[in-house]
Amino acid sequence: MKVTKFGGSSVASAEQLKKVLAIVTGDSSRRFVVVSAPGKRNNKDKKVTDLLIQFYNAVVYKQETDEVVREIVTRYTEIAAEFHVAKQLEQVFYTELQQLQENYDAVDPYALDRFLATGENLNAQLVAACFQQSGVNTRYINPKELGIIVSDEPQNARILEQSYEKIYQWRNSDEILIIPGFFGYTVDGQLCTFSRGGSDITGSIVAAGLKAELYENFTDVDGIFSASPKYIHDPELIEYATYREIRELTYAGFTVFHDEALMPAFKAHIPVIIKNTNNPECQGTLIKKNFEDENRNEVVGVASDDGFCGITIGKYLLNREVGIVRRILQILESFHIGFEHMPSGIDDISIILRERHLTREIETELMKQIEEKIQPDQLSIEHGLSVVALVGEGMRERPGITADSTAALARKNVNLRMISQGADERSIIFAIRSEQERLAVRSLYYTFFD
Amino acid sequence: MKVTKFGGSSVASAEQLKKVLAIVTGDSSRRFVVVSAPGKRNNKDKKVTDLLIQFYNAVVYKQETDEVVREIVTRYTEIAAEFHVAKQLEQVFYTELQQLQENYDAVDPYALDRFLATGENLNAQLVAACFQQSGVNTRYINPKELGIIVSDEPQNARILEQSYEKIYQWRNSDEILIIPGFFGYTVDGQLCTFSRGGSDITGSIVAAGLKAELYENFTDVDGIFSASPKYIHDPELIEYATYREIRELTYAGFTVFHDEALMPAFKAHIPVIIKNTNNPECQGTLIKKNFEDENRNEVVGVASDDGFCGITIGKYLLNREVGIVRRILQILESFHIGFEHMPSGIDDISIILRERHLTREIETELMKQIEEKIQPDQLSIEHGLSVVALVGEGMRERPGITADSTAALARKNVNLRMISQGADERSIIFAIRSEQERLAVRSLYYTFFD
Repeated sequence: MKVTKFGGSSVASAEQLKKVLAIVTGDSSRRFVVVSAPGKRNNKDKKVTDLLIQFYNAVVYKQETDEVVREIVTRYTEIAAEFHVAKQLEQVFYTELQQLQENYDAVDPYALDRFLATGENLNAQLVAACFQQSGVNTRYINPKELGIIVSDEPQNARILEQSYEKIYQWRNSDEILIIPGFFGYTVDGQLCTFSRGGSDITGSIVAAGLKAELYENFTDVDGIFSASPKYIHDPELIEYATYREIRELTYAGFTVFHDEALMPAFKAHIPVIIKNTNNPECQGTLIKKNFEDENRNEVVGVASDDGFCGITIGKYLLNREVGIVRRILQILESFHIGFEHMPSGIDDISIILRERHLTREIETELMKQIEEKIQPDQLSIEHGLSVVALVGEGMRERPGITADSTAALARKNVNLRMISQGADERSIIFAIRSEQERLAVRSLYYTFFD
Repeated sequence: MKVTKFGGSSVASAEQLKKVLAIVTGDSSRRFVVVSAPGKRNNKDKKVTDLLIQFYNAVVYKQETDEVVREIVTRYTEIAAEFHVAKQLEQVFYTELQQLQENYDAVDPYALDRFLATGENLNAQLVAACFQQSGVNTRYINPKELGIIVSDEPQNARILEQSYEKIYQWRNSDEILIIPGFFGYTVDGQLCTFSRGGSDITGSIVAAGLKAELYENFTDVDGIFSASPKYIHDPELIEYATYREIRELTYAGFTVFHDEALMPAFKAHIPVIIKNTNNPECQGTLIKKNFEDENRNEVVGVASDDGFCGITIGKYLLNREVGIVRRILQILESFHIGFEHMPSGIDDISIILRERHLTREIETELMKQIEEKIQPDQLSIEHGLSVVALVGEGMRERPGITADSTAALARKNVNLRMISQGADERSIIFAIRSEQERLAVRSLYYTFFD
C-alpha cells in the first residue's frame, strides 16, 4: 500500500487534477492521497495559500473581503465545474470562508493557522468530490479524524509520536482517503500548521503511520537531479539515492522539497519516490536507507549554495590551549549563530558561517568580542563565499574521488578557501569564492557525470 | 652581532669543544655564546643532566653520592685537561656539587631546578676557561647578572618581559660572553629552569634581548629536512623556511628542536639559522618571518606523526543546532582534552585527538557523556590514526597542490580519513591509518621533491 502526495502545481487546475486521477486509479495500491492547496497555473497566477493570506490580512485590518473570497472560491469551482461537482461545493466553500471571517479573534493565536490550512482543507474536499463523481470509492478525511496530533505551536507544529498508531488504525480502509496536507490538531483540538515542507510532511507522517510500502511524492519535476539546472544544462536524474545523500544534497542548494519534511518517512524506513505528475512514466528518484545490488554512481550529485562567509582566527599554540575553540563557539552562540564548518591548520582555525546570520552590526560586535576574549594573533573575515558539496556514499570506497575533484577544480583555477572531509566520507565540502561557484559546479559535474 | 647556541652533543667532548672554538673565533660577530650541558659522546654514554638527576635522587634518598659526583666532575675535567684548565676547575666544580648537596632541603620547591641547572652552569664556566686559555677575550656570565628574569614556576619558568631591556644593556660588551642555557632567576632571586627546549630558549631570549642580527642554533644535524629520514633516504634540506612553516612542521613530527623555544626570537623578528657543529660549511636552515626574492619551493616539507584517534559524531540537523559542537567541546574540556582538528560533513563532525589524552577509562567515560549529553544518531571512535601535514606558504599561490597531493595519495590507495585545509592555505592536513603513514609521507615527498 502506498501513500501518494500531490504538490500545488499538480492540483492547480482541472487538467492537472485529471492527471492526478489517472495516477491514483492507475495503481490499486494507491489508497491514501495527500493534497496541497492549488498552486500557480502560470507565472502570473497566485497560489491559493497566498490568496488566503490576503484574505486574512483583509479581515485583520477590517477591509473589504468579498472580492478575495470570490477569487478563492472560484479557483475551486473552476476545477469543480469540469467534474460537475461545482454546485454541491460552491456554497459549502463560501460558508467555510465566511465562518473563518466571523470566528476571527485578534487575540486567538491559532487564527492564522486556520486561514492558511483552509487552502488544503477545501482542496481535499474538492478532490474527494471529483474522484467520487468519477466513480472512485473515496472520501475526504480530516486530519483530526485521521489522528494527526501535533505540538501546540501555531505555524510551527511538530508531529507527536502518539499520532502514528492512531493513523495505523486506518490501514485497511476500503475507501481511498483524501487527506489535506499542512496541518494537524493539538491534544486540545486546536488546528496548527506545520512550519516547513507543508504538505510534504503530512504525506511523510501518514506513510510512516501506515507503515506504507512507499511514499510517493508527486511534483512537477522528474525527480532530483545530480546538479542544479541553473548551472548544468539537462543534468542527469538521480535514480537512486540514500536518505543521507539527499540530506547532504538538500543542505547545499537542492530545493525540490524540504528534506526535513521527509524525516518521518526516513525514520520509519519507508522508501520515498519523487515523481512528476506531468510525466509519470519517468521513473523518478527513489530514496531509501541503503541499496544493495543497484548499480549506483559513487558520486550522486554536486550541490552548491552561496551566502557563506569565513572567519579565520590565528593564534600561536591555538591547538594546545584547551578550550579556546569552545570559547570561540560560545561567542558565536551568544549571537545565536551556528557554524557550518570549521577546518583548522596548526595555529589557525577557519569558521564558515551563513552570511545571513551577520548584519553589519552583529559582525562588528562579533569580531570585537573575538578580538577581546580570544586575543588572536590574526583575525579576518572573508565574505562572498560559496559552499560546494560533492556527495555520494560510494565515495568511501574510492580514495581517488578526492583527488579527481580537487584536480578538476585546480584545472579551472578554482581557489579552494577551505576543504572539509570527515571520517564518514559521504561528502567532500569545498568553500570557494562565489564568483567561481558556477565554474566549480560545472568542473565537478563534468568530472563525475557523462 | 650574532647569538650562537651550542647543543649538548656540540659540547660533549674536548674534540667537539675545539670545533665550537673554531666556529666562534671564525666569525668576529659571534659575541654571545649559549651552551647546553655536555650530552652523550656515544650511544652508551649518559648526558650530564641525567647524571645530575641521579645525583639529586641519591641526595633525596640519602644514598651514597661520591661516585656519581666523581662521574659528573670527570665529564668536565676530561675536557678541561685538553685545554690545560683542569686544575683550576676541578676543585671549584666539586665544591659546587657539595654545596648543592649540603643546601638540599626536602621542602624547597627550587631544589631540583638547582641540580638540573648545574649541568649548563658548570659547562659555561668550563667553556669560558677553555676559550680564555686559548687566548680568546671571553668570560662566563651568570643568567642573573645577564638579566634573565623568569616567572616563579619551578621547572616550568617563563621569561618575563622586563628581561629584554636588561639583556640589551650587554649589547656592546667587549668580551665574548659564555652563557649557561636552560635557566633564569625569579624576581626574588630563585633559580628556575625552563620547561621545554632547555638551552634553545635561552639562546632565543638572549638574541631577542640583544636585537641580534641572527640567532645561530648549532646542533648535530645539517638543519631541518623536508621529510623525516625515518621514511625518506637522504631527504632534501630546507634551506629557507618561515617561522610559520617551522611551526607547522614541528607540530607534526619534526623534532630537531622545540619550536616553542624559538618564539622569543620569532616574536622579535630575529632570523634563526639551524647549523651543524660537525659540518659548519653546510649552509643549514635559515628561518625568517618571510622571504622576498629567494626562490623557494611552494611545499617546504612533509611532516607526520602518529598516535591520533578520531571521534565521529553524527546527528540529524547537527549544523542547525546552535551550540551543539560547543557542548561537545565542553565535554572534552571537562577531561582537559584539546582537539587537533574538527572536519565536518553535513550532519556529522569528526574530532581528531591525540591518543595520549585517552586512557581506556577516560575514553569510556568520554563516549558515555557524549552519548548522554549529545544523544547522537551515530557515535564511533577510530584509533591508530596518523596526521600527515603538507606545509608551505607558497601553496597559497598554487591551487594545484591540493590536487597533486590527493592524487599522489590516491595512487597509493592511501585512505583519507579526514582532510582539513583552512583559509590561510599554509598547510593541508590529512588523517590516515597509521599503517599507511610511511606510504603517505613517501608518496607526498616524491611528488613535491626531486
